[in-house]
Amino acid sequence: MDIAELQATLRKTYYRRDARRGRDATFRWMTEEVGELARALRNGDQEELAHEFGDVLAWLTSLANLRGVSLDAAATRYADGCPRCGASPCRCEFR
Amino acid sequence: MDIAELQATLRKTYYRRDARRGRDATFRWMTEEVGELARALRNGDQEELAHEFGDVLAWLTSLANLRGVSLDAAATRYADGCPRCGASPCRCEFR
Repeated sequence: MDIAELQATLRKTYYRRDARRGRDATFRWMTEEVGELARALRNGDQEELAHEFGDVLAWLTSLANLRGVSLDAAATRYADGCPRCGASPCRCEFR
Repeated sequence: MDIAELQATLRKTYYRRDARRGRDATFRWMTEEVGELARALRNGDQEELAHEFGDVLAWLTSLANLRGVSLDAAATRYADGCPRCGASPCRCEFR
């Protein structure tokens, strides 16, 4: 699935609700999902893990919709390698 | 950009480093980026905001690579509308 396609679908599905709830509450929801991802990383099976990764991605995208940010455009910084050193594999000092 | 293409590129760019650092430290990095996103949501301009959305997406994808999760497959739950009520726009009780 294309990132832009996902973002457009999520806009159609959730934008009205997200706008009604507002930016901060939507950010809070995304953070709640990050917590659920943390729990699945700790003790979930692969299916639960995929579920939570999907949820975090969806909420991140909903938040991007609320703020008028194209996730596809944002992702292009990573399209050709590391944005910091320009290489792939990355050659930055390890951190 | 396709989600799978982004994930493959990030795997080539960062997997070795991410595996060396480990799952928990990579999760910690992702959370640090969520914090930077929060700051950009509070007082960043549109360019800074896009930068941070991109970083969170990249770290989420790196973590998915470490755990063998396909973000593209995870996203398909949202491909046809709300996974809970099946509709687009969503018809769930507002929350």
